[in-house]
Amino acid sequence: MAADGGEDARVGRTRADVARAALGVLTSEGSDAVTHARIADVAGYSKTTLYAHWPSRFDLIAVALDALGDMPHHERSGDLRPDLIGELKIFRQAVVEFRLDRVLSGMAQWASVEEMAQIRDTINTDGQRPLRTMLEECFGGFELEAAVSMLAGVVACPSIMFGTLPDDGAIAAAVDIVLRSAVDRL
Amino acid sequence: MAADGGEDARVGRTRADVARAALGVLTSEGSDAVTHARIADVAGYSKTTLYAHWPSRFDLIAVALDALGDMPHHERSGDLRPDLIGELKIFRQAVVEFRLDRVLSGMAQWASVEEMAQIRDTINTDGQRPLRTMLEECFGGFELEAAVSMLAGVVACPSIMFGTLPDDGAIAAAVDIVLRSAVDRL
Repeated sequence: MAADGGEDARVGRTRADVARAALGVLTSEGSDAVTHARIADVAGYSKTTLYAHWPSRFDLIAVALDALGDMPHHERSGDLRPDLIGELKIFRQAVVEFRLDRVLSGMAQWASVEEMAQIRDTINTDGQRPLRTMLEECFGGFELEAAVSMLAGVVACPSIMFGTLPDDGAIAAAVDIVLRSAVDRL
Repeated sequence: MAADGGEDARVGRTRADVARAALGVLTSEGSDAVTHARIADVAGYSKTTLYAHWPSRFDLIAVALDALGDMPHHERSGDLRPDLIGELKIFRQAVVEFRLDRVLSGMAQWASVEEMAQIRDTINTDGQRPLRTMLEECFGGFELEAAVSMLAGVVACPSIMFGTLPDDGAIAAAVDIVLRSAVDRL
């Protein structure tokens, strides 16, 4: 057998193909377009195969969101200011590459479905973790909660509210506001 | 004629009724449910009347968003800290009352329609204006842009990302982080 042969490898390839197709349709056409017929067409599989592995439309959306699982993060240097700026710039880049504005707003729209709310919470918690870990070096309690939302908000708010992204200057300014305040408090 | 009589008053009432009905359907059932048939049913007007005044579904969504025009804001005392906290608490309350999380994420989903992008920008610019005016007292340039997004983000990010709202403590902490940083800079 070839190294990429066998049942497990085939299922894995199918899953990766379908996840990529579903994420592509989700971010380019919106959640309403994520149907078995459309994803089967884009991914190049039969509807029968799709229904066998992902019986409901929520399963298709969930597998699409799985494809976001390996979101890129900044590699830490240990120096907090450039590390925070680097992480926010990578978040900004991911908004463009993965259309995170549409993913975020799409997940918010479906959040009345409990299963979807849980997927959303996991994705957002995972996504914010590096930022939170860095901010824990200088904040705790309510200020930590606030600082995480504030720095995430510098990228997410312009994106969701205005369809724009912050300049490098605005990202650095946000980090400086937070760090100046942390130094002042310590 | 009675004070509330006449053609203009009648059109005004129809508009207000339809706007309220459309906003209600939009926030409780999502943008897909905003159709002429559904809004006519909820508002108690004929579909013919609705098509006459609002020919497209975008017109219905636009009139729904108009009903958000008079968003509540905090009445300023002149003392910056309580004024910022008050404005953010009213924003938080409006998220609950007007389901702003759904409105925001809904607008983001349709933003590829240029007309809708413009309506969204106007609503969000108007909504952020009191916050921006207050922050202009202690920030300018990139730091002003950053501070507006950061404080809006303290309410908007938990709402859109996790379906939660910040505690009073997190709102106060965010304002304190920003103001401590402003004092330090001056």
